[in-house]
Amino acid sequence: MNPFAEKLSLLRGAMKVSNIDTCLITSGDPHLGEYVPDHWMIIEWFTGFSGSSATIIVTDSFAGLWTDSRYFIQADAQLSGSGFVLMKPEFPDKNDYLGWMSVNLREGSATGLDGRTFSIAQVNKIEKLLDERNISCDLECDLISPLWTDRPPMPASKAFDHLVAFCGKERDVKISEVRSVMKKRKIDYHLLTSPDDIMWMLNIRGNDIRYSPLLSSFAIIDEDQILLFADELKIPLKLALEFDRLDIVMLPYEETGGMLTTLSPGNSILITPGTTSASLYKSIPGEMKIIEDISIPTKLKAIKNRVEIENIGRVMIKDGVALTRFFYWLEQKVSSSSLSELTIIEKLNSLRSEQENYICPSFATIAAYNEHGALPHYSATPGTDSILGDGGILLVDSGGQYLDGTTDITRTIALGIPTAQQKKDFTLVLKGTINLALARFPSGTKGFQLDILARKALWDSGMNYGHGTGHGVGFCLNVHEGPQNIGTGAGPGSQIILEPGMLLSDEPAVYREGEYGIRVENLILCYEDEETEFGRFLKFDTMSLCYIDKSLIETSLLDKKEINWLNLYHAEVYDKLSPRLTPEENEWLQEKTRAF
Amino acid sequence: MNPFAEKLSLLRGAMKVSNIDTCLITSGDPHLGEYVPDHWMIIEWFTGFSGSSATIIVTDSFAGLWTDSRYFIQADAQLSGSGFVLMKPEFPDKNDYLGWMSVNLREGSATGLDGRTFSIAQVNKIEKLLDERNISCDLECDLISPLWTDRPPMPASKAFDHLVAFCGKERDVKISEVRSVMKKRKIDYHLLTSPDDIMWMLNIRGNDIRYSPLLSSFAIIDEDQILLFADELKIPLKLALEFDRLDIVMLPYEETGGMLTTLSPGNSILITPGTTSASLYKSIPGEMKIIEDISIPTKLKAIKNRVEIENIGRVMIKDGVALTRFFYWLEQKVSSSSLSELTIIEKLNSLRSEQENYICPSFATIAAYNEHGALPHYSATPGTDSILGDGGILLVDSGGQYLDGTTDITRTIALGIPTAQQKKDFTLVLKGTINLALARFPSGTKGFQLDILARKALWDSGMNYGHGTGHGVGFCLNVHEGPQNIGTGAGPGSQIILEPGMLLSDEPAVYREGEYGIRVENLILCYEDEETEFGRFLKFDTMSLCYIDKSLIETSLLDKKEINWLNLYHAEVYDKLSPRLTPEENEWLQEKTRAF
Repeated sequence: MNPFAEKLSLLRGAMKVSNIDTCLITSGDPHLGEYVPDHWMIIEWFTGFSGSSATIIVTDSFAGLWTDSRYFIQADAQLSGSGFVLMKPEFPDKNDYLGWMSVNLREGSATGLDGRTFSIAQVNKIEKLLDERNISCDLECDLISPLWTDRPPMPASKAFDHLVAFCGKERDVKISEVRSVMKKRKIDYHLLTSPDDIMWMLNIRGNDIRYSPLLSSFAIIDEDQILLFADELKIPLKLALEFDRLDIVMLPYEETGGMLTTLSPGNSILITPGTTSASLYKSIPGEMKIIEDISIPTKLKAIKNRVEIENIGRVMIKDGVALTRFFYWLEQKVSSSSLSELTIIEKLNSLRSEQENYICPSFATIAAYNEHGALPHYSATPGTDSILGDGGILLVDSGGQYLDGTTDITRTIALGIPTAQQKKDFTLVLKGTINLALARFPSGTKGFQLDILARKALWDSGMNYGHGTGHGVGFCLNVHEGPQNIGTGAGPGSQIILEPGMLLSDEPAVYREGEYGIRVENLILCYEDEETEFGRFLKFDTMSLCYIDKSLIETSLLDKKEINWLNLYHAEVYDKLSPRLTPEENEWLQEKTRAF
Repeated sequence: MNPFAEKLSLLRGAMKVSNIDTCLITSGDPHLGEYVPDHWMIIEWFTGFSGSSATIIVTDSFAGLWTDSRYFIQADAQLSGSGFVLMKPEFPDKNDYLGWMSVNLREGSATGLDGRTFSIAQVNKIEKLLDERNISCDLECDLISPLWTDRPPMPASKAFDHLVAFCGKERDVKISEVRSVMKKRKIDYHLLTSPDDIMWMLNIRGNDIRYSPLLSSFAIIDEDQILLFADELKIPLKLALEFDRLDIVMLPYEETGGMLTTLSPGNSILITPGTTSASLYKSIPGEMKIIEDISIPTKLKAIKNRVEIENIGRVMIKDGVALTRFFYWLEQKVSSSSLSELTIIEKLNSLRSEQENYICPSFATIAAYNEHGALPHYSATPGTDSILGDGGILLVDSGGQYLDGTTDITRTIALGIPTAQQKKDFTLVLKGTINLALARFPSGTKGFQLDILARKALWDSGMNYGHGTGHGVGFCLNVHEGPQNIGTGAGPGSQIILEPGMLLSDEPAVYREGEYGIRVENLILCYEDEETEFGRFLKFDTMSLCYIDKSLIETSLLDKKEINWLNLYHAEVYDKLSPRLTPEENEWLQEKTRAF
């Protein structure tokens, strides 16, 4: 029997015993972030599907999995034989399972979910739907833990001090800034559920979660103290002493909910509905005034300070050196050795790891050859691994976590002589990357107002891409870190005002199914330009440093301004990287960055 | 004593008698549209302020007026001596009076307003604020009517049939379309409060309101009949017979609220909160399921049909002929005669009125010379009227209501040799007009995604304009008619998906206070372009036909694509207008439209 089918049958048995007709399981952990510790990778353990985001529903006669469309091909393969059906709505949306529930669940039946892994925002929607149909909902239904006998333990990494030389601001200053906003907004308590918020505020980092240097933890801040919910063992003595001095009280991780129940009713508390689990939310005394908003640290840390910005500049040089070495190596080897997607990923990760202050990749490195590139979130596995040939298109999307910053960059290169269509596609995408980077806009502008700059050249040719244009980027934190982003306006992120100091990606793309994918991604930093009689104007500075493959450029499609940008960019790449390269690498890079 | 100060003192007396501490009055009529019949021009009669939108608050010790910032200069002058203070918040917003109320009204005091002239959306906000402070709110407080002894009567124009040759679709077909949407959405009743919705659905027009061919009326549609609330005298016999055949029942205007109270509880009713008065809303039985949304006719009529589109094409030729004659006449006369803003407005209106099927101007014609042009909504009066000189910049924004369409166009011309700054400003604005007109975008795109196309050239030079880029335009209805628009995303209009058949204005601008204003406005029609493997793409067609003043163009600032657009546009203007012009006008237009 398929091991996943067996687990499904065990779950159904447990549901029967517990009188649960419908069981909901999601890919979240108690912090509801993008990456979760192994302990919480329930969906993968239970169904075999390894995509980063999914929800499953199990009844006695149905087992379905919902995920976003970028994972459809992968999920189809991984779910085969598991007993799970991949649910593929025409216009996939992460809340589609709600639609299924509204049609299929029996009036008066019993539903269960683990409220630690669903946000209160999700549970509110679920409960509204179930209430209308008189269906009960048990929020403490964890039927997986008893089945998962070899479950990885809770993450137990140790926190370390994130030096002011890196992050630019003492922890007591950051804490005061948070408290000052709380005071102004008459907020008595602020519940922090996203570890990145806590890391930033306390100038610590950890290693609990893949790709982000985080310590799984919660915190509650009021005007006098901070309760930090992270087991004492995880905080080294020197930090603990410093915390003590700042009235930061360490409490066991599991006591977060219990502590919330003891807060004074009548006081106000700020929480973020999208990252606060239903369990924690339900622990807040009903008489408290609950204010729902983006957290204060999330807003503050999105604006990088002067030291952070200087460090980002330095980290980009290190990252650019690793990338240059990688592409140089690749070009030497590709025709003689049989390189595969997985071998080049290993090489790139290894070259990055040689750089100073490197921690880990900031996400799973993507190397996608030819048709694999058409899957925006393709992840090579031994089963799919392609050998790179003499021709074709290779897309490499990668990034690093360094103590002095977080990187994320995509380059697409031709391994042989590209076709006219490939050159046109690449050049139209590059025009988008350049035109967003060149934007100048009044203070108060939001991401959705700029999105078209990255798409216009594609739209003019009847092309488009199905994802956002740019995400916010953390500082030695999450590679995808808002609140801001640049997109078509569908989500809340692109409705955030862009401010000087915000770091974003700039990554238009084009995907031709079965053929190849092209994406050109740089990180751009928003900065204050001039003030005119019409107001304050802002601009972007392109921070990422790596050559752009000229063999894929159809120069007749670029205008003067775009060629000028490219020549200046290549000159900067060469000037900043060459002092750190070998003479051979240098000579090679000089050719790659020669002006048009 | 200032006559307005006298009225204020009378109102205060009436407030005392009625035990009202605070009286709110707004510039709306019971339909809450942009233009109101004279009967409802309470603010102008009461305060002397003639701007189109304002709210006043009167207490025993305070009398303040809130309006938008474009009217500040005018309001300052008109309110002088009236006893009213013009309230000028730093970032004016139409709800600013709420902020004042929240700070200044006494706990437990009594407030009054006439719920017929405030929308339920406004009253909900007011009541929320007052409830928190335990302040009562009388929604039937009309203290003005008893004071206004020479008040103009309620409008009493007669409806006329709007022929299918103009509007392209029989009324019974439109009614079926509305009912079909209602059925699909399970809506039992649909309350129509905007006369333009009713005019469109019933293929009638009237003459109750300045600038829009409307009949002040309400309607309630259900699956069997339509209740039309408009006095019987206003409907000619032939139409009345036709209405009878279609189960359209005429009822007195005043009975709308009474009829709403008789609707079956338990049924559903669709209303539009922004255009439904608080009085009507409160008449709806509490047990009904109220669905709040844009009205169905508003959505349907925004998509112009094939006949309407053909008629719009023809109307643009007529409008272009009138404009060409006007600018030709102006150029001949300006140096020899002493023309003023008011005399040229009269001339332009008169030339338009010579065109076939003309009804009236679609808004108050704007002719703004030099510094007057810097006030985006300047309206010349005998007190401000400027004599046009040999040099300077003239902005003319005008439009007509015709049986076969509605126009709105702005042209800015130089009366002498323009300065380098004027040419640069004009050219950057023109680049915006052109680049929005040239947009190609995927189906599903919203107005806020395209707004930057009209601003980009200005932003690149540190300039901007403080209003939206484009409004929807009706068909022989309102010149400003949504739901769609193109703007920065602040309002709901630019969040509406643009669809083939929608007509919008395209009007970037630049205003230099004390110097001049420049705006170049055309109407553009959205149409279906091609479908590619990436989806359906849409484009715009520029409909307005009038030359653009080349003497204001700095050609070095235009790129090839823009010059090409201009040359093609000028060729089209000449080709379409010249058959209707005199030989002299023709020769003149040929020069004005000669290709670069």
